[in-house]
Amino acid sequence: MVICCNNNSVCRSTGPEDVFVKVMCCGICHTDLHQAKNDLGMSNYPMVPGHEVVGEVLEVGSDVSKFRVGDIVGVGCIVGCCRNCRPCDSDNEQYCLKKIWSYNDVYTDGKPTQGGFAGSMVVDQKFVVNIPEGMAPEQVAPLLCAGVTVYSPLNHFGLMGSGLRGGILGLGGVGHMGVKIAKAMGHHVTVISSSDKKKVEALEHLGADDYLVSSDAEGMQKAADSLDYIIDTVPVFHPLEPYLSLLKLDGKLILTGVINTPLQFVSPMVMLGRKSITGSFIGSMKETEEMLNFCKEKNLTSMIEVVKMDYINTAMERLEKNDVRYRFVVDVAGSKLDQ
Amino acid sequence: MVICCNNNSVCRSTGPEDVFVKVMCCGICHTDLHQAKNDLGMSNYPMVPGHEVVGEVLEVGSDVSKFRVGDIVGVGCIVGCCRNCRPCDSDNEQYCLKKIWSYNDVYTDGKPTQGGFAGSMVVDQKFVVNIPEGMAPEQVAPLLCAGVTVYSPLNHFGLMGSGLRGGILGLGGVGHMGVKIAKAMGHHVTVISSSDKKKVEALEHLGADDYLVSSDAEGMQKAADSLDYIIDTVPVFHPLEPYLSLLKLDGKLILTGVINTPLQFVSPMVMLGRKSITGSFIGSMKETEEMLNFCKEKNLTSMIEVVKMDYINTAMERLEKNDVRYRFVVDVAGSKLDQ
Repeated sequence: MVICCNNNSVCRSTGPEDVFVKVMCCGICHTDLHQAKNDLGMSNYPMVPGHEVVGEVLEVGSDVSKFRVGDIVGVGCIVGCCRNCRPCDSDNEQYCLKKIWSYNDVYTDGKPTQGGFAGSMVVDQKFVVNIPEGMAPEQVAPLLCAGVTVYSPLNHFGLMGSGLRGGILGLGGVGHMGVKIAKAMGHHVTVISSSDKKKVEALEHLGADDYLVSSDAEGMQKAADSLDYIIDTVPVFHPLEPYLSLLKLDGKLILTGVINTPLQFVSPMVMLGRKSITGSFIGSMKETEEMLNFCKEKNLTSMIEVVKMDYINTAMERLEKNDVRYRFVVDVAGSKLDQ
Repeated sequence: MVICCNNNSVCRSTGPEDVFVKVMCCGICHTDLHQAKNDLGMSNYPMVPGHEVVGEVLEVGSDVSKFRVGDIVGVGCIVGCCRNCRPCDSDNEQYCLKKIWSYNDVYTDGKPTQGGFAGSMVVDQKFVVNIPEGMAPEQVAPLLCAGVTVYSPLNHFGLMGSGLRGGILGLGGVGHMGVKIAKAMGHHVTVISSSDKKKVEALEHLGADDYLVSSDAEGMQKAADSLDYIIDTVPVFHPLEPYLSLLKLDGKLILTGVINTPLQFVSPMVMLGRKSITGSFIGSMKETEEMLNFCKEKNLTSMIEVVKMDYINTAMERLEKNDVRYRFVVDVAGSKLDQ
């Protein structure tokens, strides 16, 4: 299903603005699963997924000023944008309508883009970030998508101040980073889940303050009107009303999961409390840099299971069953793709 | 169906904080229709609807400082709140969970509240506003609900600056005030409607800049990604996606109509553009005062059809068919209820 590039023939030559990156490791996100399996109906093969990439700079183009050979860098979900629209002009290039995805897209040279489950990548310097010194590459990988997916809306919607009360709905790759990042911001964090299976994990290992089972009517009623925001990481259909009712006046339900089944709500649930149902998509390159510095400063790490490339299909199957604590990271460099 | 109070026996005596108001006129809002007909399943009879009330102060309580006998004042949708919660503490008493509606509710003395289709009302001074001098009472009445319903979200969501591009979805009582208020703020205003029936009206009489028929695929496509906000005044089920697609990055779809049928959307429509589906409920007393001053300063008037009380059932029937341009206002004082 997943095709791993083990030679450089798919990579373009390093252009003046490009950085040639030897991939060290790459996280596996739920979107990789969607794309590999064509769940969204827009997959093109052969495909090399992977968009949580950490690697070492082997070569830089003549106009590259931000990076030097030997730097440890990261690449995330996008590798191109138009640079000329309102989102691009306001450092929100992730919302550019002409953005180019790291894989399963077409680059400016007309060739398909390919992701980080590969020996190397050539990426425009605008879409490369420096990894702060001292951070472990495999720990950083999930931050480049899951981490910034949580950090960006908290930053954009003015939800970084300490003392806020936040909810994290769903405890997967994004959710676990949500708990860690929100806690590091000084928030009171409630994990909301469909069962109590992850209660000990959430409270004892991730440091959440509270745990709410959505089918516990009494607990949900008690928690009504108490949260400033909920980051909703659930990538499948679910009712919104139970979670809207947990929000305070002006509270925000922030969707981060692509769900193609329509979601529903009744208008008084948002009107009577001026609540917002909104969404956020990864984050900007600027926010990615800020988030990495924030994680470095707060000594934040992700919880991962490192695997080799020959385990990737099994990892994908386990991810589909939510059987991972909380992110698989492929040790690409250690998988000896070139042998 | 509608019961008009024509004596003062239902009014309490004027307490220390109360203002005794002789009703001059009162607008008919779509909610009055819902309540009178028990469409929301929570009506209690006998009921005196009416929450766009303008009247003259005949008496003030001993602790009333804001009003004097002879003042022309307004009363809107609510007449009480707890004064002790987060919404109340932040001048957002319209979102107090213990707010008391102007009618079809129970007051602090245990008696039912009754609205403005009556000879008089006794109202706590906190919920009474001064009508700026020189504004015609019947013109002002619709501002007290329809006007502030539009003004409040534009104010709250930071959408008052000139140069913004706004959409008004639905051209009824609230919608027509939406066009007028948004135009007075210096916005480029597009009216969006299901047919072209109101095109001339919107462009020539209300001063809208553009008119979009939602079934016109080409026009909708051309207008995609162009609006900073849409005030959605449609009080019945409608799809949200066509309107979400009109919004720019960070655009807001602001619902103002109570709809009990679930509304639907798919998550990528809000995520890829960080759009918000939100709602707003009337406005605070502070915003009501600001809005009245804004309308006075901009010389804004509502478009109304003044009727006497004996026409009210017919008016209700016509309102149900959207057959009014754009608000009925009952000339209560001229209806000689006490004869």
